[in-house]
Amino acid sequence: MKIGFYQFVPEFGNVDKNIDTMVEAVKSADADLVVFPELATSGYLFLDPKEVEATASAVPGPMSDAFLKAAVETDTAVVVGFPEKADGVFYNSALIATHDGKVQVYRKNHLFNEEKLFFKPGNLGFPTFDVKGVKVGVLICFDHMFPEAARTLALDGVQIVCHPANLVLPGFAQITSCCRALENGVFWILANRHGTEDRKGRSLSYSGLSRIVDNRGNVIAQAGAADTGFYGVEIDPAKAFDKKVAPMADLFADRRPELYNKITK
Amino acid sequence: MKIGFYQFVPEFGNVDKNIDTMVEAVKSADADLVVFPELATSGYLFLDPKEVEATASAVPGPMSDAFLKAAVETDTAVVVGFPEKADGVFYNSALIATHDGKVQVYRKNHLFNEEKLFFKPGNLGFPTFDVKGVKVGVLICFDHMFPEAARTLALDGVQIVCHPANLVLPGFAQITSCCRALENGVFWILANRHGTEDRKGRSLSYSGLSRIVDNRGNVIAQAGAADTGFYGVEIDPAKAFDKKVAPMADLFADRRPELYNKITK
Repeated sequence: MKIGFYQFVPEFGNVDKNIDTMVEAVKSADADLVVFPELATSGYLFLDPKEVEATASAVPGPMSDAFLKAAVETDTAVVVGFPEKADGVFYNSALIATHDGKVQVYRKNHLFNEEKLFFKPGNLGFPTFDVKGVKVGVLICFDHMFPEAARTLALDGVQIVCHPANLVLPGFAQITSCCRALENGVFWILANRHGTEDRKGRSLSYSGLSRIVDNRGNVIAQAGAADTGFYGVEIDPAKAFDKKVAPMADLFADRRPELYNKITK
Repeated sequence: MKIGFYQFVPEFGNVDKNIDTMVEAVKSADADLVVFPELATSGYLFLDPKEVEATASAVPGPMSDAFLKAAVETDTAVVVGFPEKADGVFYNSALIATHDGKVQVYRKNHLFNEEKLFFKPGNLGFPTFDVKGVKVGVLICFDHMFPEAARTLALDGVQIVCHPANLVLPGFAQITSCCRALENGVFWILANRHGTEDRKGRSLSYSGLSRIVDNRGNVIAQAGAADTGFYGVEIDPAKAFDKKVAPMADLFADRRPELYNKITK
């Protein structure tokens, strides 16, 4: 199975151009699973709710149709961050479009900083998705800081975590990507953007360094801080079923859930 | 507050010598908190339950008396791994001896590999300890791989996690030490041993690289792979109360415990 990410600089507010860029990337990737950054159709640095509304997409709709067409034509699962309009409100969501003709969404559960001014927190829990028989989960950016999020996916059998991000806190996701993969024995695809958004006196810079981490915490693909392009690697997702790190030591069987009650309080 | 660790090579089976070595280290450290490795009084590579029995200590007892005396005399809290005998069984435990005359224990909750042949899993939950007004928790070696363990301590207000270890899986604790500190906003003291134990055809090598990590995941002290000695650093433990990583982003307030129920199942 070939998995990968596409790191690039979305153009703020230019949804059609960003979709075109990503659809072309899907077509040239020749992969089974391609992950794009958070809010990759719209850009990130919203200053006004009207900007969210102007760039948001409903699912299904023209945006998901475009990615689904590419997914089916190229036999590729596509994960892409976008502002979602649903039931009159907005979510920071990811689209999961699969080769078998399905479109599904994950809605970010842990909103970061000023995102709370524009989006509602996710209301779909931590769903899982089937990609050619492999169980896949999605977390969006700040979700990575909460070990409970990836743990919940892994306990549900997820083998690959897709992590669309727009990272502004330097170094944090480099630490967590290895740790989440290691502690859960899963593969991790961090798809970050790069570049700087300057908008009416506000500025945010994004750190690039997207990467793929294997089920023992090793970085097996890595983009630079300002690279644009697709990075892919062949993996055996069945390795994520192996939770043994020594003959009598198992990341899951050795858990002691009866001691973890504070976590749900 | 000056915190630190002492990395060394315990001599297998020579409890008196190991205690003497560590008591001398406490006296020369001039610190508020010193952490020693896992099973530092006994050595690690047990081949027979009789070897555990021969090196185990009850608390209180001569072993804890020796550390308590050093703790009180030098105004230092001491955390040291040892095989504990209690109620006719054995635990892989850590002693916490504080300057105010108390001895307490933590019993390892997640036993690693063949430890299961010699020890019972911990039955005291995740206790916390007061060190001069600072809330301290202890995890022992393999506990570090389970994010729920450190999370439970941090949710209970722990500012510093002491992590006595005998690490044989290379690199794992370098990943987790930064991640646990970062995701919980706490300080982390990894006290590993080094050297190789060769016993009747069996051999284990320990990886050293003990370290202290600050509340944002930065390594602020680090020993080499084969260094013996004390490493200490001044910290402000009140920084662990600050869980904000951006003006509107908080590692604790942004948690969504209602979504984490799978973790306690």
